[in-house]
Amino acid sequence: MSRVLVANRGEIAVRILRACQELGLETVAVYSEADADARHVAMADRAVRIGGPRPGESYLRAETLVQVALAVGADAIHPGYGFLAESAHLARLCADSGVTFVGPSAEIIDRLGDKVNARRIAVEAGVPVVEGTGDRAASVEDLLELGERQGYPILVKAAAGGGGRGMRIIRDADEVRGNLEDAQREALAAFGSDVIFGECYLERIRHIEVQVVGDHGGDVVHVGTRDCSVQRRYQKIVEEGPATAISPELRARIEEDAVRLVGSIGYVGAGTVEFVVDLNRGTHHFIEMNTRIQVEHPVSEMVSDIDLVREQLWVADPEHRLSFAQSDVLLRGVAIELRINAEDARNGMMPSPGRITGLQLPGGPGVRVDTHCTVGAMISPYYDSMIAKIIVHDRDRDAARRRAIRALSETHIDGVTTNIPFLLGVLEHANYEANLFHTKWLEEQMPSILQVLESATPQGEARGDL
Amino acid sequence: MSRVLVANRGEIAVRILRACQELGLETVAVYSEADADARHVAMADRAVRIGGPRPGESYLRAETLVQVALAVGADAIHPGYGFLAESAHLARLCADSGVTFVGPSAEIIDRLGDKVNARRIAVEAGVPVVEGTGDRAASVEDLLELGERQGYPILVKAAAGGGGRGMRIIRDADEVRGNLEDAQREALAAFGSDVIFGECYLERIRHIEVQVVGDHGGDVVHVGTRDCSVQRRYQKIVEEGPATAISPELRARIEEDAVRLVGSIGYVGAGTVEFVVDLNRGTHHFIEMNTRIQVEHPVSEMVSDIDLVREQLWVADPEHRLSFAQSDVLLRGVAIELRINAEDARNGMMPSPGRITGLQLPGGPGVRVDTHCTVGAMISPYYDSMIAKIIVHDRDRDAARRRAIRALSETHIDGVTTNIPFLLGVLEHANYEANLFHTKWLEEQMPSILQVLESATPQGEARGDL
Repeated sequence: MSRVLVANRGEIAVRILRACQELGLETVAVYSEADADARHVAMADRAVRIGGPRPGESYLRAETLVQVALAVGADAIHPGYGFLAESAHLARLCADSGVTFVGPSAEIIDRLGDKVNARRIAVEAGVPVVEGTGDRAASVEDLLELGERQGYPILVKAAAGGGGRGMRIIRDADEVRGNLEDAQREALAAFGSDVIFGECYLERIRHIEVQVVGDHGGDVVHVGTRDCSVQRRYQKIVEEGPATAISPELRARIEEDAVRLVGSIGYVGAGTVEFVVDLNRGTHHFIEMNTRIQVEHPVSEMVSDIDLVREQLWVADPEHRLSFAQSDVLLRGVAIELRINAEDARNGMMPSPGRITGLQLPGGPGVRVDTHCTVGAMISPYYDSMIAKIIVHDRDRDAARRRAIRALSETHIDGVTTNIPFLLGVLEHANYEANLFHTKWLEEQMPSILQVLESATPQGEARGDL
Repeated sequence: MSRVLVANRGEIAVRILRACQELGLETVAVYSEADADARHVAMADRAVRIGGPRPGESYLRAETLVQVALAVGADAIHPGYGFLAESAHLARLCADSGVTFVGPSAEIIDRLGDKVNARRIAVEAGVPVVEGTGDRAASVEDLLELGERQGYPILVKAAAGGGGRGMRIIRDADEVRGNLEDAQREALAAFGSDVIFGECYLERIRHIEVQVVGDHGGDVVHVGTRDCSVQRRYQKIVEEGPATAISPELRARIEEDAVRLVGSIGYVGAGTVEFVVDLNRGTHHFIEMNTRIQVEHPVSEMVSDIDLVREQLWVADPEHRLSFAQSDVLLRGVAIELRINAEDARNGMMPSPGRITGLQLPGGPGVRVDTHCTVGAMISPYYDSMIAKIIVHDRDRDAARRRAIRALSETHIDGVTTNIPFLLGVLEHANYEANLFHTKWLEEQMPSILQVLESATPQGEARGDL
């Protein structure tokens, strides 16, 4: 590998370009009309405009990306996250064109991208899953049988889906038929498939995931756990790692299960195995695997000092083996990631696109900032509203939380409304401080957090001569 | 301790304020007329103007600082580095006023501040020193005897001095008298004392130092070594740690010697024990101890994940013991610190004060930035010309060096001339890459590095449609 085309934009494009630069790899950026002045364009050795501002006109055009790679002599494509990061089609096009796709093979993406298939792989690897209707499209009868056997609520979700679309919670037998039909309709519209399955709906759970990396020699290592339970509408807001809410023993079991699952399929590249953990029962259940680098990967990087994007690029070469062994993975302290978005917490988290006119980012010990924004950057309505990720690290969770508050307090962004006050409200919440929350906690607490924001007044200051 | 007065300015004041904020301590900044708009003033809970722009009118006024502390109810003073950081007078005033001085006692500062005394302490602790004329003021006869016994060159230096003033290198017996008299005259003018001593002058050496921390219980730990051999006129330019140019065994011996020396005097607080290492002979020799936090402390923080400024504040309380044991100090990877200064490498490193009109700092994995500067900040001619410290960390020295180059490449500062191109010249030099240099190397290489800078042209870029 000598020249990498980065098939993405925003902070993850910058992140990948940095890794390439440090490895001495040449870089090619691609960009839409909306991103002509973007930082990833300026950073790359070469940049190619690929189309209009809408993702479907540019960043989602797999054929175009491969054509550009061939035209500029790029021998690898890194897809980042989002867009085509989990596109088996792009992986297949790359393979057919002799271009290295930085990620697993098309076949693996296909197998894991289908939730029913992924679940079957987990069951075969002896990894616990959530009890459900089985591997085929669920019927009304299947769902009624599950409710009878395991109790309600039941969750129905699209086999091909993600992001909450096609999902319904069914609280009793009377609700089964209507919800199934609604979910099927929504899934068909969103994903082109109306295959729905059902499973026990666990409440007051944690979302805990395991970072893994595999190589072409069949070795798989994990880089510990992350807890992403602070969510709103299935979107992660604050992520941390390792998952200190569970015992070291349970963490170890979950990590082992993740490695066993991934090892059973010959997975190559970085990936994330996601689990839900029922804190009351102390049980964990595989839910899905993401076959890409994730937004929150820096959490694992900060506690392990392992560069995951560099490792992705490294193991993409069939000749290379993992540059570290499991015994080299020594996690230290706790890291917390905060997603700084241009959005208005007081207005239903409405995106707040616009131009950044002032930008003061935090620094000092244990603070990492990943951003594509500089003063003058445009937060475009065409893409997600992320401005920056601030990741902090300290010796334990409480110290990391205090550091996160300190880092947010010294962050100043002008020109767009940001979620910084809202994030401070989360970090300063007694439940967050006590590590007592679950995946629905943030939604439940939204009103009280927003109320604190409304009543907040600037702190008093005293300046001057004695 | 509940309210800390930060008796400093610039990046170290910001560094200390951050540590206080994370510990939940209230903060008081002090500032000169030149610093009314400085970031440390804005960051602190309260700020007090203490005088004119010249250090002697403000930051060097020990009595004023203690008066301000008492007036605002601060129960501790952190002196940072420079200014009064190693002032026994300030430490004594604090002790007499019931204010905690964040540092060792006045008596310890006095004992270690005198180089003859410090050397005696090392000898008594069984720590190797550079052979010299002994503990009293050197005469012409003493120097001739040393030259006869150990060979030339000999270095004469002021017992009370630092920064190269009062220093002379004597290459043969004929030069002894004239150089001693010159050194005495210069020392008297600079330090008020003409006491000079002489020692063997080691050439082609490394400057290697050990970070230590001691508590009131008599415990001392080290946090590894730093190599600060990239110097110009005794000023450190690029620092790294651990000192990978020497064997792990020699590193361990130097660390043990540092701990033994410090343990022999009941040292409290953070300090640095400085050695020179003769790479050819594999010998190390104590030269001096600094009783303050140092500019390059983040190097040790990045490889150890220990917050040294937090620990300083912690152990300043006589009731507290070190928050970690020697066995908790596990160094990982290599860190490199780059001092970004407003200075003109093409013009003899002349300071280049002025207003910063644009500031883009580096980010991403393994990059830490410590700065007091924001857009609009003034680099004042009254103080040192440091704009920021960029500290990078990676798994080994070569990776850290590549990361340092990457981080510098994405740093853009407008409004003042900076040493960034010069620093890139150092990092990209074959000797630096090969870890083959000594304390005079940079001065020897200045012409060739500057020549590369002169001939550098911007890299070609290609942007646009395919």
